[in-house]
Amino acid sequence: MTKYNGYRRVAVIGCGTVGASWAALFTAHGLDVAAFDPAPGRGERLAAFVTHARSQLKEFGLDGEGSLTLHERMEDAVAGADFVQENAPEDEVAKRGLLAELDALLPEHALIASSTSALLRSAIVTECARPERVIVAHPFNPPHLVPLVEIVAADAATAERAAAFYRDLGRRPVILRREMPGHIANRLASALYREAVNLVAEGVASVADVDAALCNGPGLRWAAMGPHMTYHLGGGAGGIRHYLDHLGPSQARRWASLGNPALSEAVKAAIVSGIDAEAEGRSIAELEARRDRSLIEILKSRVEVAGQ
Amino acid sequence: MTKYNGYRRVAVIGCGTVGASWAALFTAHGLDVAAFDPAPGRGERLAAFVTHARSQLKEFGLDGEGSLTLHERMEDAVAGADFVQENAPEDEVAKRGLLAELDALLPEHALIASSTSALLRSAIVTECARPERVIVAHPFNPPHLVPLVEIVAADAATAERAAAFYRDLGRRPVILRREMPGHIANRLASALYREAVNLVAEGVASVADVDAALCNGPGLRWAAMGPHMTYHLGGGAGGIRHYLDHLGPSQARRWASLGNPALSEAVKAAIVSGIDAEAEGRSIAELEARRDRSLIEILKSRVEVAGQ
Repeated sequence: MTKYNGYRRVAVIGCGTVGASWAALFTAHGLDVAAFDPAPGRGERLAAFVTHARSQLKEFGLDGEGSLTLHERMEDAVAGADFVQENAPEDEVAKRGLLAELDALLPEHALIASSTSALLRSAIVTECARPERVIVAHPFNPPHLVPLVEIVAADAATAERAAAFYRDLGRRPVILRREMPGHIANRLASALYREAVNLVAEGVASVADVDAALCNGPGLRWAAMGPHMTYHLGGGAGGIRHYLDHLGPSQARRWASLGNPALSEAVKAAIVSGIDAEAEGRSIAELEARRDRSLIEILKSRVEVAGQ
Repeated sequence: MTKYNGYRRVAVIGCGTVGASWAALFTAHGLDVAAFDPAPGRGERLAAFVTHARSQLKEFGLDGEGSLTLHERMEDAVAGADFVQENAPEDEVAKRGLLAELDALLPEHALIASSTSALLRSAIVTECARPERVIVAHPFNPPHLVPLVEIVAADAATAERAAAFYRDLGRRPVILRREMPGHIANRLASALYREAVNLVAEGVASVADVDAALCNGPGLRWAAMGPHMTYHLGGGAGGIRHYLDHLGPSQARRWASLGNPALSEAVKAAIVSGIDAEAEGRSIAELEARRDRSLIEILKSRVEVAGQ
């Protein structure tokens, strides 16, 4: 296979954090990026983000010479593009119109990928003349560091074509067999967060301690191995079959005991003050820098242990 | 403070995987370990596990010269112990009797910590003459690598005394404000697993892809930062307050949409065959070795980013 499916030019539509992060990744791989965003002042923020993200990507040896150009008109940004990564706000009606417009502008061979986390593919491609080349490709923040890309496509061949492209970008694509609100990973995150909120609401532990329990316990393990495989190892010599037969009933009892908290004003206030305590005065920018530093070191460490 | 609270000798009662892992950690820190386990053939398995785990701990510069002795009688193992780590099977009646026996054997100053994951402290200390020095200190597998220790104690001073000891062992203790079945981390894991099972049961993705989505997405981030702090960063400049006010309702809708699967024979069969595919013929021992390798590299990488 030709690397990057032979693509040379990628259009990034919508250049907030997600779009800017994609732009950094594409250019670091040597792909030319033509960007468009109608928001005023977007150019400076995009340039600053890409410069910073590119310095992070250098730590992985990614130092390609793709160009980055911000265009005033969307049709100029997509002219000659082989691939479009769309990162507009999560407004279903607006996104439906935007994707139809992109579909009309682009030549037959180009793929159009929406980064949407909240919307269903079936709901946003309805106005496209060629919906079969419009996919969902949902990344995790920040996309230039976190490898996951969740793909929803009309058919297996299109999904695989997109997956091959993302794999060449060092991403880990996962293809959904059918669409689902929240895809996979945000559903898992949301399920966990409900109990994380419950434990604070019930006064079992502080926000900081719930966070520490996750990232020094199961979260740490989940960076190495997923939940199903973790329980396979938890079953001892009999593996997952033994686990499900012998500990499945206790897992089901635990499920029944999980909380279903309301995000009341009191609960929200407890979470906000808990975060204040956990942050210890550090700004969001400082916390992001720390998260990125940690992710970079973890990702570097994973090179040795091979693909999850 | 004196390091390790001044303790010199630790008794490890129950030497399966958890107990053996604790024994490796204690001896690597230079503490003498007196072990007891009634199971036949336990000595060889204990020695083999400790040798292997100690070689892993050397990678962190932990190469203490604590002795390890397996005793035939429990009273010999606990004689002169400053601290007991109990890791017997999760049988409430048996554990209640065992803890009472340990309490009767040990001098006043000694702490007794149960590794129980499934049982409540209040249910297992009822026959102890001095229940206030009997705590729950629940580790995560394998305890010599994963830092989390969840502590449930009768009072804050005892909890803090135990926490100080575990901190000196390089662990990250979290003290529960009140006891809860499954403590904190297993409740979070269980909440996530319910949706991981649901996604397989609903045919959204394979077992391997659900696992890959977690450990290349939110699981990776959770090795760096807990779920509350993650949403603090997800709120942009407004942080968690903005997140809860603006995206809280969509989080609550997502919660309402999560699955509640039954572990039916069909679902269990789908999980078992999915694990077969994901394992690609690798034995449990090979998978454990890979998990440990990955954990070691991640933990080493975290040295630079400072304490979670």
